[in-house]
Amino acid sequence: MGEYNTPMNETENTACLLIYCADQPGLVAALSTFLYKHNANIVHADQHQDRMQNLFFMRVEWELEHFKLSEQACRAEFEDMAQRLALNWNLSWPAARPKVALFVSHHLHCLADLLHRHEAGELPCEIPLVISNHRDAEKLVRFHGLEFHHLPVNKENKCAVEQEQLSLLQIHNIDLVILARYMQVLSDGFVANYPNKIINVHHSFLPAFKGAQPYAQAHERGVKIIGATSHYVTADLDEGPIIEQDVVRVSHRDQPKDLSVKGKDLERTVLSRAVKWHLQQRILVYGHKTVIFD
Amino acid sequence: MGEYNTPMNETENTACLLIYCADQPGLVAALSTFLYKHNANIVHADQHQDRMQNLFFMRVEWELEHFKLSEQACRAEFEDMAQRLALNWNLSWPAARPKVALFVSHHLHCLADLLHRHEAGELPCEIPLVISNHRDAEKLVRFHGLEFHHLPVNKENKCAVEQEQLSLLQIHNIDLVILARYMQVLSDGFVANYPNKIINVHHSFLPAFKGAQPYAQAHERGVKIIGATSHYVTADLDEGPIIEQDVVRVSHRDQPKDLSVKGKDLERTVLSRAVKWHLQQRILVYGHKTVIFD
Amino acid sequence: MGEYNTPMNETENTACLLIYCADQPGLVAALSTFLYKHNANIVHADQHQDRMQNLFFMRVEWELEHFKLSEQACRAEFEDMAQRLALNWNLSWPAARPKVALFVSHHLHCLADLLHRHEAGELPCEIPLVISNHRDAEKLVRFHGLEFHHLPVNKENKCAVEQEQLSLLQIHNIDLVILARYMQVLSDGFVANYPNKIINVHHSFLPAFKGAQPYAQAHERGVKIIGATSHYVTADLDEGPIIEQDVVRVSHRDQPKDLSVKGKDLERTVLSRAVKWHLQQRILVYGHKTVIFD
Amino acid sequence: MGEYNTPMNETENTACLLIYCADQPGLVAALSTFLYKHNANIVHADQHQDRMQNLFFMRVEWELEHFKLSEQACRAEFEDMAQRLALNWNLSWPAARPKVALFVSHHLHCLADLLHRHEAGELPCEIPLVISNHRDAEKLVRFHGLEFHHLPVNKENKCAVEQEQLSLLQIHNIDLVILARYMQVLSDGFVANYPNKIINVHHSFLPAFKGAQPYAQAHERGVKIIGATSHYVTADLDEGPIIEQDVVRVSHRDQPKDLSVKGKDLERTVLSRAVKWHLQQRILVYGHKTVIFD
Repeated sequence: MGEYNTPMNETENTACLLIYCADQPGLVAALSTFLYKHNANIVHADQHQDRMQNLFFMRVEWELEHFKLSEQACRAEFEDMAQRLALNWNLSWPAARPKVALFVSHHLHCLADLLHRHEAGELPCEIPLVISNHRDAEKLVRFHGLEFHHLPVNKENKCAVEQEQLSLLQIHNIDLVILARYMQVLSDGFVANYPNKIINVHHSFLPAFKGAQPYAQAHERGVKIIGATSHYVTADLDEGPIIEQDVVRVSHRDQPKDLSVKGKDLERTVLSRAVKWHLQQRILVYGHKTVIFD
Repeated sequence: MGEYNTPMNETENTACLLIYCADQPGLVAALSTFLYKHNANIVHADQHQDRMQNLFFMRVEWELEHFKLSEQACRAEFEDMAQRLALNWNLSWPAARPKVALFVSHHLHCLADLLHRHEAGELPCEIPLVISNHRDAEKLVRFHGLEFHHLPVNKENKCAVEQEQLSLLQIHNIDLVILARYMQVLSDGFVANYPNKIINVHHSFLPAFKGAQPYAQAHERGVKIIGATSHYVTADLDEGPIIEQDVVRVSHRDQPKDLSVKGKDLERTVLSRAVKWHLQQRILVYGHKTVIFD
Repeated sequence: MGEYNTPMNETENTACLLIYCADQPGLVAALSTFLYKHNANIVHADQHQDRMQNLFFMRVEWELEHFKLSEQACRAEFEDMAQRLALNWNLSWPAARPKVALFVSHHLHCLADLLHRHEAGELPCEIPLVISNHRDAEKLVRFHGLEFHHLPVNKENKCAVEQEQLSLLQIHNIDLVILARYMQVLSDGFVANYPNKIINVHHSFLPAFKGAQPYAQAHERGVKIIGATSHYVTADLDEGPIIEQDVVRVSHRDQPKDLSVKGKDLERTVLSRAVKWHLQQRILVYGHKTVIFD
Repeated sequence: MGEYNTPMNETENTACLLIYCADQPGLVAALSTFLYKHNANIVHADQHQDRMQNLFFMRVEWELEHFKLSEQACRAEFEDMAQRLALNWNLSWPAARPKVALFVSHHLHCLADLLHRHEAGELPCEIPLVISNHRDAEKLVRFHGLEFHHLPVNKENKCAVEQEQLSLLQIHNIDLVILARYMQVLSDGFVANYPNKIINVHHSFLPAFKGAQPYAQAHERGVKIIGATSHYVTADLDEGPIIEQDVVRVSHRDQPKDLSVKGKDLERTVLSRAVKWHLQQRILVYGHKTVIFD
């Protein structure tokens, strides 16, 4: 993770370090001593241990005002310790904001929500472009002053369109792709370009009701609660690391279309939380699970 | 349902009618006129229509103080209308309290909860006996002054034990069987004796994590919310009509044993609600789904 | 209520009747017989009794396809029965959509949410205009193609501005005013023009933390859950009939600004539910409380 | 806090340190180095900073298997650092289990819940005695094999009874008093003996509906959600530091007695969580607020 460089921090002028590694005595002492001796004023720190797998996780955020190291010096000096302790790490610096691309199809509730939050200052990122296989979102996207790319997809052109999408993402140096109800399955090849950097929202409480039409499935089964799930996209459909889930009560009175309306509110909630946490460097992925530092 | 006779009502002296049938004009008019002309004072009424299947559901509860019909006369007169309108119906009268049997294994949290609620007057029923394949519950059951039957089960004797269980249920005229974390699968033959009269609690948010070890499965998948489900038992394991579900947040910090502790609170909640609603005649089963009149 | 005429129904072609009155035998029989004899196909019906105050409440919605009465004939004939039974009633017909005015100040999250839902077809109403004491909302409002009126308020001009607001509302035949985070207290005189037709959202779990700065108050008290409340506006500030409330967990980690961000999501949720229910004729106000027919 | 000695840890053989102090650079480095050099294997660590008040909070738990210091040596050595850094601290060692007294009146749901959890191993403490002003709880308490003291209270004898209660608490070396729906207000003098060591449950979502009859107040106000609150008892009635709150939806259908039944489930939930967290040393009180290390 050392090369992954998304500068995104909660306050104006803080750096943030995410670490995971095999658990071993003295980790916290080593890390906190490193920061202290360079005059870091820690504003948030959180640790977690997975005792079954003997793993150690840490997130620490500190003010840069009196910190003695430049980003480059910090990376260089930290690299030493990281090698010695066999750390996976990701250091972010407040210089640049991560660049985010949104993918959307017909349903605009997640897109509208994310664009509103972005404008309200809740999402510390830039959004250079929105890509869609339909034109529904175009007006809204342009109102927000963003580039809109209409790339219709069908069985025949799917491969070519993905190439076009990838090239747009590369041109804009995209750090994170958000599938804001993008109703196309991405190929494994596409996904491989952005490991743990594509966030999807699935409109069910995973692992229940994978695949198509989850609200119809939920209605058919007669569940009393429905949910939505945001997760990183992997080659396995609907099997990626879960970031956030939320639920709402339903009853026998709710028809599939009522589930769909109630579910929309869940979808935008779990997706926007996932995006925010990713941008705030609060998520660590290990195996097919996540640690969320709140 | 006309012959199923569980007198259980919310207040001291009310009768309760549950109906479902093909939807047709004039149903409410016919039913409410029937009750009105015999001087029923309605205290609760609720209807539901399933528009996709063209079904009508109703629950109505009325005071008997000034009602002009005896139970027998009411049944006789209502039977006429029911045949004409092709109603499935269930009339309950406040004469007797339904008789409930509890099945339990090692975990006592659901049992302790139900026995406490019963003593506190929340569950309008009699509990003539508790059956267990272990002795853990015996002391608690006897403290509450109830019969305890210890019937150990293994592969060899399962069939014989079920016969013994059934005979105990018949001796006590049991109306409802509650599996309060009874960790044995009942045979289809056993279940067939009590259609929609056996309530189980499964420690997952069904249909996710069916079968064994749902908390371990949930931990392995890395879900952010866990649940519990109460349902009627059918021949299909964990596929019966869902009565109630509830959920609680978990995090990466929770190990399987933490999920199990958090889940226990859910289990007793969803089970006790299901039992209460069943006893209050609030549940109508159709197909593999339920209507809950709240 | 007989003169209050907001045609707003869930499906394309249904009429809806809201009733409340002193409880008395035969009410349901009389009402359902009235509808049945004119060939109404009831699609939803719900009753409630307040036993402490001996009140009866009912909402019934029926298809007009085969209904034999015109709106006028229905009103005339129903008026007879209503007088006989001393009913308060409100009949809505699917001819016209209610007209809604939105008031807003600086915070746009509720406004953006309502405008998005309106465009997505979730809110069956027209929104002829938005009024604000600031210009923040102007761009968004105009994007949605709505009239925007900028009416700055201060101590001196408050009375005159309210006159101007009222005159705008009258010109547009407004049926419902929504205070979507409008940070001005309306005068009693203004409120008297729209009894139970002004919906406000207060950013606390009322009755806790009335008045100014509820999130600062909540932080100061150290509560573990915060809430938001939508309610009808009355002369008593923050004391009007509560329509909906919702809550979210907070912790010692949340500073007042974090509460404010979390609270925004609650505010738009409880406000949009209140607006939708009002438009669907699901709310009956009696005294300072509401019955919500869900 | 250095003298307060409640040995209570999550796992078999861990020590736990709770600290709060003015925030200052190097705190984590100093503390983690102290633990590391004595061979502590940290199993949980959590920090929090209150930036507005410039306070630092920490909870750290470590295994004792390879730890080089005895409890006494650890206290002595730590005391040095604590004085230098002006720490408030509380060290717990797994030698003894804290002793808890339960106070109860008529309602037994919280008591039954706590006794069941205690027996199920969820509450790491001893419960030497239960004190009540009524006899309702006696049978249940004796079933669990605990001492029961019946001390009726009235206006005249209140002072004398409190003396008797205090003397019982002292005889049994009680560390924590739980008011499990004890419907008597304790005098300031009594409370002063157990600062932040008396936990009460109030049956409302504080600060709403303080004082008597909160469910009746909630029904009167027409709220859509009710709550319960566990808190430390201070001289100000219902104003002590809040530990936990939880809520449940209610509707116009719920009469005050329905609120009371729904509320009972909340009460036992928030009280049992508070007790568990207190026993696990997860709560730090500062001012009239709490930090909960989860």
